[in-house]
Amino acid sequence: MPNFKIVIAYDGTNFCGWQVQNRLSHIAYRESQKPSIQQTIEDALRKIARKKIKIICAGRTDAGVHAKGQVANFILNLAIPLSGLKAALNSLLPDDITVLKISKVNDDFHSRFSAKSKAYRYTILNSGQRDSFSKNFVYFCDYPLDLALLRKEAKALLGRHDFSGFCASAGKKKNPLKKIKRISVKKQGHRVYIDIEADGFLYNMVRNIVGTLIEIGRGKFPKGSMKKILSIRDRRLAGPTAPARGLCLMRVKY
Amino acid sequence: MPNFKIVIAYDGTNFCGWQVQNRLSHIAYRESQKPSIQQTIEDALRKIARKKIKIICAGRTDAGVHAKGQVANFILNLAIPLSGLKAALNSLLPDDITVLKISKVNDDFHSRFSAKSKAYRYTILNSGQRDSFSKNFVYFCDYPLDLALLRKEAKALLGRHDFSGFCASAGKKKNPLKKIKRISVKKQGHRVYIDIEADGFLYNMVRNIVGTLIEIGRGKFPKGSMKKILSIRDRRLAGPTAPARGLCLMRVKY
Repeated sequence: MPNFKIVIAYDGTNFCGWQVQNRLSHIAYRESQKPSIQQTIEDALRKIARKKIKIICAGRTDAGVHAKGQVANFILNLAIPLSGLKAALNSLLPDDITVLKISKVNDDFHSRFSAKSKAYRYTILNSGQRDSFSKNFVYFCDYPLDLALLRKEAKALLGRHDFSGFCASAGKKKNPLKKIKRISVKKQGHRVYIDIEADGFLYNMVRNIVGTLIEIGRGKFPKGSMKKILSIRDRRLAGPTAPARGLCLMRVKY
Repeated sequence: MPNFKIVIAYDGTNFCGWQVQNRLSHIAYRESQKPSIQQTIEDALRKIARKKIKIICAGRTDAGVHAKGQVANFILNLAIPLSGLKAALNSLLPDDITVLKISKVNDDFHSRFSAKSKAYRYTILNSGQRDSFSKNFVYFCDYPLDLALLRKEAKALLGRHDFSGFCASAGKKKNPLKKIKRISVKKQGHRVYIDIEADGFLYNMVRNIVGTLIEIGRGKFPKGSMKKILSIRDRRLAGPTAPARGLCLMRVKY
Protein backbone atom coordinates (compact mmCIF):
# COMPACT_ATOMS: atom_id res chain seq x y z
CA MET A 1 0.00 0.00 0.00
CA PRO A 2 1.52 3.37 -1.00
CA ASN A 3 2.85 5.46 1.87
CA PHE A 4 2.75 9.21 1.20
CA LYS A 5 4.90 11.82 2.92
CA ILE A 6 3.73 15.43 2.92
CA VAL A 7 5.50 18.59 4.06
CA ILE A 8 3.00 21.14 5.27
CA ALA A 9 2.89 24.75 6.43
CA TYR A 10 0.15 26.18 8.60
CA ASP A 11 -0.94 29.26 10.44
CA GLY A 12 -2.01 27.64 13.72
CA THR A 13 -3.98 30.66 15.00
CA ASN A 14 -7.42 29.28 14.26
CA PHE A 15 -6.78 25.68 15.34
CA CYS A 16 -6.78 23.81 18.65
CA GLY A 17 -3.39 22.34 17.68
CA TRP A 18 -2.36 19.32 15.64
CA GLN A 19 -4.88 17.18 17.46
CA VAL A 20 -7.63 17.64 20.00
CA GLN A 21 -5.77 17.74 23.32
CA ASN A 22 -6.70 15.31 26.04
CA ARG A 23 -4.86 17.27 28.72
CA LEU A 24 -7.45 20.03 28.90
CA SER A 25 -6.83 23.16 30.91
CA HIS A 26 -9.54 25.84 30.95
CA ILE A 27 -7.83 27.66 28.12
CA ALA A 28 -7.30 24.45 26.17
CA TYR A 29 -10.97 23.65 26.54
CA ARG A 30 -11.94 26.96 24.95
CA GLU A 31 -9.32 26.38 22.26
CA SER A 32 -10.68 22.92 21.59
CA GLN A 33 -13.84 24.47 20.15
CA LYS A 34 -11.59 25.18 17.17
CA PRO A 35 -10.84 22.40 14.68
CA SER A 36 -7.56 20.47 14.81
CA ILE A 37 -5.01 20.51 11.99
CA GLN A 38 -5.05 16.70 11.85
CA GLN A 39 -8.85 16.50 11.58
CA THR A 40 -8.91 19.19 8.90
CA ILE A 41 -6.38 17.32 6.74
CA GLU A 42 -8.09 13.95 7.37
CA ASP A 43 -11.40 15.51 6.28
CA ALA A 44 -9.80 16.60 3.01
CA LEU A 45 -8.26 13.14 2.49
CA ARG A 46 -11.58 11.48 3.20
CA LYS A 47 -13.14 13.46 0.35
CA ILE A 48 -10.40 12.28 -2.00
CA ALA A 49 -10.23 8.64 -0.85
CA ARG A 50 -13.94 8.29 -0.02
CA LYS A 51 -12.96 6.63 3.24
CA LYS A 52 -11.26 7.53 6.51
CA ILE A 53 -7.48 8.00 6.15
CA LYS A 54 -5.39 8.41 9.29
CA ILE A 55 -2.39 10.71 9.21
CA ILE A 56 0.62 10.75 11.52
CA CYS A 57 2.78 13.82 12.04
CA ALA A 58 6.35 14.36 13.16
CA GLY A 59 5.60 16.79 15.99
CA ARG A 60 2.18 17.45 17.49
CA THR A 61 2.04 21.23 17.74
CA ASP A 62 -0.14 22.94 20.36
CA ALA A 63 -2.98 25.43 19.85
CA GLY A 64 -1.67 28.61 18.20
CA VAL A 65 1.70 27.11 17.23
CA HIS A 66 2.63 27.35 13.54
CA ALA A 67 4.57 25.19 11.08
CA LYS A 68 6.60 25.91 7.98
CA GLY A 69 7.90 22.37 7.63
CA GLN A 70 5.68 19.93 9.51
CA VAL A 71 5.89 16.40 8.07
CA ALA A 72 3.09 13.86 8.02
CA ASN A 73 2.46 10.53 6.34
CA PHE A 74 -0.53 8.42 5.42
CA ILE A 75 -1.38 5.22 3.58
CA LEU A 76 -3.56 5.74 0.52
CA ASN A 77 -4.33 3.25 -2.21
CA LEU A 78 -5.28 5.52 -5.06
CA ALA A 79 -4.12 5.73 -8.68
CA ILE A 80 -3.51 9.48 -8.83
CA PRO A 81 -0.32 11.34 -9.81
CA LEU A 82 1.52 13.09 -6.96
CA SER A 83 0.97 16.58 -8.39
CA GLY A 84 -2.76 15.87 -8.71
CA LEU A 85 -2.98 14.66 -5.13
CA LYS A 86 -1.17 17.76 -3.89
CA ALA A 87 -3.44 20.07 -5.90
CA ALA A 88 -6.55 18.22 -4.74
CA LEU A 89 -5.50 18.46 -1.10
CA ASN A 90 -4.71 22.17 -1.32
CA SER A 91 -8.00 22.90 -3.03
CA LEU A 92 -9.89 21.07 -0.26
CA LEU A 93 -7.91 22.55 2.64
CA PRO A 94 -8.61 26.01 4.08
CA ASP A 95 -5.82 28.41 3.12
CA ASP A 96 -4.50 28.32 6.70
CA ILE A 97 -2.95 24.98 5.75
CA THR A 98 -0.78 24.41 2.67
CA VAL A 99 0.74 21.17 1.39
CA LEU A 100 4.19 22.26 0.19
CA LYS A 101 5.58 18.92 -1.01
CA ILE A 102 4.38 15.41 -1.50
CA SER A 103 6.32 12.22 -2.20
CA LYS A 104 5.99 8.44 -2.04
CA VAL A 105 8.10 6.86 0.69
CA ASN A 106 8.98 3.35 1.84
CA ASP A 107 6.42 1.34 3.77
CA ASP A 108 8.46 1.62 6.95
CA PHE A 109 8.62 5.42 6.90
CA HIS A 110 6.87 6.84 9.97
CA SER A 111 6.91 10.63 10.20
CA ARG A 112 7.40 10.58 13.98
CA PHE A 113 9.53 7.51 14.69
CA SER A 114 11.76 7.92 11.61
CA ALA A 115 12.61 11.55 12.44
CA LYS A 116 16.25 12.21 13.35
CA SER A 117 15.67 15.77 14.54
CA LYS A 118 13.21 18.62 14.56
CA ALA A 119 13.97 22.34 14.40
CA TYR A 120 11.76 24.98 16.00
CA ARG A 121 12.03 28.75 15.72
CA TYR A 122 10.71 31.13 18.34
CA THR A 123 10.24 34.76 17.26
CA ILE A 124 10.25 37.68 19.68
CA LEU A 125 9.35 41.20 18.56
CA ASN A 126 11.66 43.23 20.78
CA SER A 127 10.51 46.76 20.15
CA GLY A 128 8.83 49.71 21.83
CA GLN A 129 5.99 49.36 19.33
CA ARG A 130 3.79 46.34 18.74
CA ASP A 131 3.05 45.26 15.16
CA SER A 132 -0.59 44.65 14.23
CA PHE A 133 0.39 42.59 11.18
CA SER A 134 2.48 39.96 12.93
CA LYS A 135 0.41 39.78 16.12
CA ASN A 136 -0.30 36.06 15.66
CA PHE A 137 3.29 35.12 14.81
CA VAL A 138 5.53 36.83 17.35
CA TYR A 139 5.74 37.39 21.08
CA PHE A 140 5.91 41.11 21.70
CA CYS A 141 8.45 42.15 24.39
CA ASP A 142 8.91 45.86 24.90
CA TYR A 143 11.67 45.64 27.51
CA PRO A 144 15.35 45.49 26.52
CA LEU A 145 16.97 42.05 26.25
CA ASP A 146 20.67 41.39 26.81
CA LEU A 147 21.24 39.14 23.81
CA ALA A 148 24.93 38.49 24.55
CA LEU A 149 23.98 37.09 27.95
CA LEU A 150 21.05 35.21 26.44
CA ARG A 151 23.35 33.53 23.89
CA LYS A 152 25.86 32.56 26.56
CA GLU A 153 23.22 31.00 28.81
CA ALA A 154 21.59 29.21 25.87
CA LYS A 155 24.86 27.35 25.19
CA ALA A 156 24.50 25.46 28.47
CA LEU A 157 21.62 23.57 26.85
CA LEU A 158 23.69 22.09 24.01
CA GLY A 159 24.18 18.33 24.08
CA ARG A 160 22.33 15.49 25.79
CA HIS A 161 20.57 16.40 29.06
CA ASP A 162 17.62 15.53 31.23
CA PHE A 163 15.23 18.36 30.36
CA SER A 164 12.67 17.70 33.13
CA GLY A 165 13.21 21.25 34.41
CA PHE A 166 11.70 22.56 31.16
CA CYS A 167 8.86 20.08 30.87
CA ALA A 168 5.20 20.77 31.66
CA SER A 169 3.89 18.30 34.25
CA ALA A 170 1.44 16.87 31.70
CA GLY A 171 4.37 15.49 29.71
CA LYS A 172 6.33 13.94 32.58
CA LYS A 173 5.84 10.34 31.50
CA LYS A 174 8.16 10.64 28.48
CA ASN A 175 11.90 9.93 28.52
CA PRO A 176 13.34 13.30 29.63
CA LEU A 177 16.73 12.73 27.96
CA LYS A 178 16.96 14.81 24.78
CA LYS A 179 19.91 16.01 22.73
CA ILE A 180 19.95 19.64 21.62
CA LYS A 181 22.09 19.73 18.49
CA ARG A 182 21.89 23.41 17.74
CA ILE A 183 20.67 26.52 19.52
CA SER A 184 21.14 30.03 18.19
CA VAL A 185 19.89 33.53 18.96
CA LYS A 186 19.82 35.96 16.03
CA LYS A 187 18.56 39.51 15.72
CA GLN A 188 17.21 41.07 12.52
CA GLY A 189 15.69 44.51 12.88
CA HIS A 190 13.43 44.34 15.93
CA ARG A 191 13.04 40.57 15.71
CA VAL A 192 14.90 38.07 17.83
CA TYR A 193 14.93 34.51 16.48
CA ILE A 194 15.68 31.63 18.81
CA ASP A 195 16.36 28.47 16.80
CA ILE A 196 16.52 25.11 18.54
CA GLU A 197 17.17 21.76 16.91
CA ALA A 198 16.98 18.54 18.93
CA ASP A 199 16.43 14.82 18.47
CA GLY A 200 13.18 15.23 20.38
CA PHE A 201 11.27 17.63 22.60
CA LEU A 202 9.32 17.28 25.82
CA TYR A 203 5.88 18.87 26.21
CA ASN A 204 6.25 22.70 26.10
CA MET A 205 10.05 22.35 26.18
CA VAL A 206 10.83 25.06 23.61
CA ARG A 207 8.36 27.51 25.12
CA ASN A 208 9.73 26.89 28.63
CA ILE A 209 13.32 27.34 27.45
CA VAL A 210 12.37 30.57 25.67
CA GLY A 211 10.41 31.84 28.69
CA THR A 212 13.51 31.21 30.81
CA LEU A 213 15.84 32.87 28.27
CA ILE A 214 13.62 35.96 28.27
CA GLU A 215 13.80 36.20 32.09
CA ILE A 216 17.58 35.90 31.82
CA GLY A 217 17.77 38.45 28.97
CA ARG A 218 15.82 41.05 30.94
CA GLY A 219 17.94 40.54 34.03
CA LYS A 220 15.35 38.80 36.21
CA PHE A 221 17.35 35.57 36.58
CA PRO A 222 21.02 35.45 37.65
CA LYS A 223 23.80 34.24 35.36
CA GLY A 224 24.15 30.47 35.38
CA SER A 225 20.39 29.92 35.70
CA MET A 226 20.22 27.61 32.69
CA LYS A 227 22.84 25.27 34.07
CA LYS A 228 21.16 25.30 37.46
CA ILE A 229 17.66 24.51 36.13
CA LEU A 230 19.11 21.70 34.01
CA SER A 231 20.85 20.11 36.97
CA ILE A 232 18.10 20.55 39.60
CA ARG A 233 15.39 19.49 37.07
CA ASP A 234 12.60 21.40 38.80
CA ARG A 235 10.11 23.08 36.47
CA ARG A 236 9.30 25.65 39.19
CA LEU A 237 12.78 27.15 38.84
CA ALA A 238 12.39 27.88 35.13
CA GLY A 239 10.69 30.94 33.62
CA PRO A 240 7.07 31.11 32.49
CA THR A 241 5.97 29.28 29.35
CA ALA A 242 6.37 31.67 26.40
CA PRO A 243 3.14 32.17 24.38
CA ALA A 244 2.33 29.69 21.61
CA ARG A 245 2.01 32.32 18.88
CA GLY A 246 5.79 32.92 18.63
CA LEU A 247 6.57 29.25 17.98
CA CYS A 248 6.98 27.59 14.58
CA LEU A 249 8.06 24.06 13.59
CA MET A 250 10.56 24.82 10.83
CA ARG A 251 11.99 21.50 9.67
CA VAL A 252 12.11 17.77 10.34
CA LYS A 253 15.20 15.82 9.38
CA TYR A 254 15.18 12.11 8.50
CA MET B 1 -9.65 72.90 21.99
CA PRO B 2 -6.63 70.67 21.24
CA ASN B 3 -6.76 68.88 17.89
CA PHE B 4 -4.84 65.58 17.86
CA LYS B 5 -3.48 63.84 14.76
CA ILE B 6 -2.74 60.12 14.95
CA VAL B 7 -1.02 57.83 12.46
CA ILE B 8 -2.37 54.31 12.75
CA ALA B 9 -1.71 50.84 11.37
CA TYR B 10 -4.28 48.09 11.28
CA ASP B 11 -4.90 44.57 10.10
CA GLY B 12 -8.37 45.07 8.59
CA THR B 13 -9.22 41.35 8.41
CA ASN B 14 -11.55 41.30 11.40
CA PHE B 15 -13.30 44.62 10.75
CA CYS B 16 -16.20 45.76 8.57
CA GLY B 17 -14.00 48.61 7.36
CA TRP B 18 -13.25 52.08 8.70
CA GLN B 19 -16.93 52.68 9.29
CA VAL B 20 -20.15 50.72 9.08
CA GLN B 21 -21.02 50.84 5.38
CA ASN B 22 -24.39 52.20 4.30
CA ARG B 23 -24.09 50.75 0.80
CA LEU B 24 -24.78 47.21 1.94
CA SER B 25 -24.40 44.31 -0.46
CA HIS B 26 -25.07 40.79 0.84
CA ILE B 27 -21.38 40.32 1.56
CA ALA B 28 -21.12 43.74 3.17
CA TYR B 29 -24.05 42.89 5.40
CA ARG B 30 -22.28 39.80 6.69
CA GLU B 31 -19.09 41.81 7.09
CA SER B 32 -20.98 44.49 9.02
CA GLN B 33 -21.46 42.04 11.88
CA LYS B 34 -17.80 42.81 12.55
CA PRO B 35 -16.86 46.02 14.38
CA SER B 36 -15.61 49.06 12.48
CA ILE B 37 -12.13 50.52 12.95
CA GLN B 38 -13.63 53.95 13.69
CA GLN B 39 -16.00 52.61 16.35
CA THR B 40 -13.20 50.61 17.98
CA ILE B 41 -10.97 53.67 18.27
CA GLU B 42 -13.85 55.88 19.42
CA ASP B 43 -14.66 53.31 22.13
CA ALA B 44 -11.06 53.52 23.38
CA LEU B 45 -11.17 57.34 23.32
CA ARG B 46 -14.47 57.34 25.20
CA LYS B 47 -12.82 55.39 28.03
CA ILE B 48 -10.03 57.96 28.22
CA ALA B 49 -12.16 61.11 27.83
CA ARG B 50 -15.22 59.77 29.65
CA LYS B 51 -17.40 61.12 26.84
CA LYS B 52 -17.99 60.50 23.15
CA ILE B 53 -15.13 61.68 20.91
CA LYS B 54 -15.63 61.66 17.14
CA ILE B 55 -12.68 60.85 14.92
CA ILE B 56 -12.20 61.67 11.24
CA CYS B 57 -9.87 59.71 8.98
CA ALA B 58 -8.06 60.50 5.74
CA GLY B 59 -9.37 57.55 3.73
CA ARG B 60 -12.28 55.31 4.71
CA THR B 61 -10.96 51.83 4.00
CA ASP B 62 -13.34 48.97 3.16
CA ALA B 63 -13.83 45.67 4.96
CA GLY B 64 -10.63 43.60 4.86
CA VAL B 65 -8.43 46.51 3.67
CA HIS B 66 -5.37 47.26 5.80
CA ALA B 67 -3.43 50.38 6.74
CA LYS B 68 0.17 51.08 7.64
CA GLY B 69 -0.21 54.84 7.64
CA GLN B 70 -3.85 55.82 8.04
CA VAL B 71 -4.25 59.29 9.56
CA ALA B 72 -7.08 60.45 11.78
CA ASN B 73 -7.77 63.46 13.98
CA PHE B 74 -10.00 64.27 16.93
CA ILE B 75 -10.66 67.08 19.36
CA LEU B 76 -9.91 66.22 22.98
CA ASN B 77 -9.67 68.58 25.92
CA LEU B 78 -7.53 66.61 28.31
CA ALA B 79 -4.36 67.47 30.24
CA ILE B 80 -2.33 64.39 29.36
CA PRO B 81 1.12 64.17 27.75
CA LEU B 82 1.20 62.90 24.14
CA SER B 83 3.19 59.77 25.01
CA GLY B 84 0.71 58.93 27.76
CA LEU B 85 -2.25 59.36 25.42
CA LYS B 86 -0.60 57.12 22.83
CA ALA B 87 0.19 54.43 25.43
CA ALA B 88 -3.35 54.64 26.86
CA LEU B 89 -4.90 54.27 23.41
CA ASN B 90 -2.71 51.30 22.49
CA SER B 91 -3.45 49.56 25.76
CA LEU B 92 -7.21 49.98 25.19
CA LEU B 93 -7.16 49.01 21.50
CA PRO B 94 -7.11 45.36 20.32
CA ASP B 95 -3.71 44.51 18.86
CA ASP B 96 -5.19 44.56 15.34
CA ILE B 97 -4.94 48.36 15.59
CA THR B 98 -1.79 50.26 16.61
CA VAL B 99 -1.33 53.99 17.11
CA LEU B 100 2.13 54.61 15.62
CA LYS B 101 2.41 58.37 16.16
CA ILE B 102 0.50 61.12 17.86
CA SER B 103 0.90 64.90 17.63
CA LYS B 104 -0.98 68.12 18.34
CA VAL B 105 -2.00 69.97 15.18
CA ASN B 106 -3.63 73.31 14.31
CA ASP B 107 -7.36 73.75 14.83
CA ASP B 108 -7.98 73.81 11.08
CA PHE B 109 -6.26 70.46 10.41
CA HIS B 110 -8.80 67.98 9.01
CA SER B 111 -7.36 64.56 8.21
CA ARG B 112 -9.48 64.17 5.06
CA PHE B 113 -9.80 67.71 3.66
CA SER B 114 -6.24 68.75 4.47
CA ALA B 115 -4.71 65.71 2.72
CA LYS B 116 -2.66 66.45 -0.42
CA SER B 117 -2.33 62.82 -1.49
CA LYS B 118 -2.77 59.24 -0.37
CA ALA B 119 -0.64 56.26 -1.34
CA TYR B 120 -2.01 52.73 -1.53
CA ARG B 121 -0.11 49.49 -2.09
CA TYR B 122 -1.67 46.40 -3.58
CA THR B 123 0.22 43.12 -3.07
CA ILE B 124 -0.13 40.12 -5.35
CA LEU B 125 1.46 36.78 -4.49
CA ASN B 126 2.38 35.55 -7.97
CA SER B 127 3.49 32.00 -7.32
CA GLY B 128 2.53 28.42 -7.99
CA GLN B 129 2.17 27.97 -4.24
CA ARG B 130 -0.12 29.87 -1.89
CA ASP B 131 1.24 31.10 1.43
CA SER B 132 -0.76 30.31 4.57
CA PHE B 133 0.98 33.05 6.56
CA SER B 134 0.12 36.00 4.32
CA LYS B 135 -3.33 34.79 3.30
CA ASN B 136 -5.05 37.90 4.70
CA PHE B 137 -2.57 40.36 3.18
CA VAL B 138 -2.04 39.33 -0.44
CA TYR B 139 -4.07 38.32 -3.46
CA PHE B 140 -2.80 34.94 -4.62
CA CYS B 141 -2.48 34.62 -8.44
CA ASP B 142 -0.98 31.39 -9.71
CA TYR B 143 -0.97 32.30 -13.41
CA PRO B 144 2.01 34.09 -14.99
CA LEU B 145 1.82 37.89 -15.27
CA ASP B 146 3.58 39.91 -17.98
CA LEU B 147 4.96 42.64 -15.75
CA ALA B 148 6.60 44.62 -18.57
CA LEU B 149 3.23 44.95 -20.28
CA LEU B 150 1.54 45.67 -16.98
CA ARG B 151 3.97 48.54 -16.28
CA LYS B 152 3.49 50.01 -19.73
CA GLU B 153 -0.31 49.96 -19.47
CA ALA B 154 -0.24 51.37 -15.94
CA LYS B 155 1.56 54.49 -17.22
CA ALA B 156 -1.55 55.52 -19.15
CA LEU B 157 -3.16 56.28 -15.78
CA LEU B 158 -0.60 58.92 -14.75
CA GLY B 159 -1.89 62.47 -14.52
CA ARG B 160 -5.37 63.98 -14.16
CA HIS B 161 -8.20 61.92 -15.62
CA ASP B 162 -11.87 61.17 -15.24
CA PHE B 163 -11.70 57.77 -13.50
CA SER B 164 -15.40 56.86 -13.83
CA GLY B 165 -14.41 53.67 -15.70
CA PHE B 166 -12.76 52.44 -12.50
CA CYS B 167 -15.44 53.53 -10.06
CA ALA B 168 -18.04 51.28 -8.41
CA SER B 169 -21.56 52.53 -9.12
CA ALA B 170 -22.10 53.23 -5.39
CA GLY B 171 -19.47 55.99 -5.57
CA LYS B 172 -20.65 57.73 -8.73
CA LYS B 173 -21.79 60.92 -7.04
CA LYS B 174 -18.23 62.09 -6.32
CA ASN B 175 -16.15 64.26 -8.66
CA PRO B 176 -14.52 61.65 -10.93
CA LEU B 177 -11.49 63.83 -11.77
CA LYS B 178 -8.46 62.57 -9.85
CA LYS B 179 -4.75 63.04 -10.39
CA ILE B 180 -2.51 59.96 -10.17
CA LYS B 181 0.91 61.27 -9.19
CA ARG B 182 2.79 58.01 -9.09
CA ILE B 183 2.14 54.44 -10.14
CA SER B 184 4.73 51.69 -10.01
CA VAL B 185 4.88 47.92 -10.34
CA LYS B 186 7.72 46.18 -8.49
CA LYS B 187 8.56 42.52 -8.01
CA GLN B 188 10.36 41.09 -4.98
CA GLY B 189 10.58 37.31 -4.83
CA HIS B 190 7.10 36.05 -5.63
CA ARG B 191 5.43 39.30 -4.61
CA VAL B 192 4.24 41.98 -7.01
CA TYR B 193 3.66 45.40 -5.44
CA ILE B 194 1.47 47.92 -7.23
CA ASP B 195 1.90 51.36 -5.64
CA ILE B 196 -0.51 54.15 -6.52
CA GLU B 197 -0.40 57.69 -5.18
CA ALA B 198 -3.15 60.17 -6.06
CA ASP B 199 -4.75 63.36 -4.79
CA GLY B 200 -7.93 61.35 -4.19
CA PHE B 201 -9.60 58.05 -5.01
CA LEU B 202 -13.07 57.04 -6.13
CA TYR B 203 -14.87 54.14 -4.46
CA ASN B 204 -13.01 50.88 -5.24
CA MET B 205 -10.74 52.73 -7.66
CA VAL B 206 -7.46 51.05 -6.68
CA ARG B 207 -9.03 47.58 -6.60
CA ASN B 208 -10.64 48.13 -10.03
CA ILE B 209 -7.37 49.40 -11.51
CA VAL B 210 -5.51 46.39 -10.06
CA GLY B 211 -8.21 43.98 -11.29
CA THR B 212 -7.80 45.45 -14.78
CA LEU B 213 -3.98 45.33 -14.62
CA ILE B 214 -4.15 41.64 -13.68
CA GLU B 215 -6.39 40.89 -16.69
CA ILE B 216 -3.88 42.74 -18.87
CA GLY B 217 -0.91 40.99 -17.28
CA ARG B 218 -2.35 37.55 -17.90
CA GLY B 219 -3.18 38.38 -21.51
CA LYS B 220 -6.97 38.52 -21.19
CA PHE B 221 -7.23 42.19 -22.24
CA PRO B 222 -5.59 43.64 -25.38
CA LYS B 223 -2.82 46.23 -25.27
CA GLY B 224 -4.15 49.76 -24.91
CA SER B 225 -7.02 48.65 -22.64
CA MET B 226 -6.15 51.14 -19.91
CA LYS B 227 -6.30 54.10 -22.27
CA LYS B 228 -9.56 52.83 -23.73
CA ILE B 229 -11.29 52.30 -20.36
CA LEU B 230 -10.15 55.77 -19.26
CA SER B 231 -11.60 57.44 -22.34
CA ILE B 232 -14.87 55.47 -22.60
CA ARG B 233 -15.43 55.71 -18.82
CA ASP B 234 -17.58 52.58 -18.62
CA ARG B 235 -16.99 50.44 -15.53
CA ARG B 236 -18.21 47.36 -17.44
CA LEU B 237 -15.11 47.49 -19.67
CA ALA B 238 -12.68 47.29 -16.75
CA GLY B 239 -11.53 44.10 -15.02
CA PRO B 240 -13.09 42.62 -11.86
CA THR B 241 -12.56 44.33 -8.50
CA ALA B 242 -9.42 42.83 -6.93
CA PRO B 243 -10.00 41.39 -3.42
CA ALA B 244 -9.78 43.74 -0.43
CA ARG B 245 -7.16 41.68 1.39
CA GLY B 246 -4.30 42.73 -0.94
CA LEU B 247 -4.87 46.45 -0.36
CA CYS B 248 -3.12 48.65 2.18
CA LEU B 249 -3.23 52.41 2.79
CA MET B 250 0.46 53.21 3.14
CA ARG B 251 0.76 56.95 3.64
CA VAL B 252 -1.13 60.24 3.64
CA LYS B 253 0.68 63.44 2.69
CA TYR B 254 -0.31 66.90 3.92
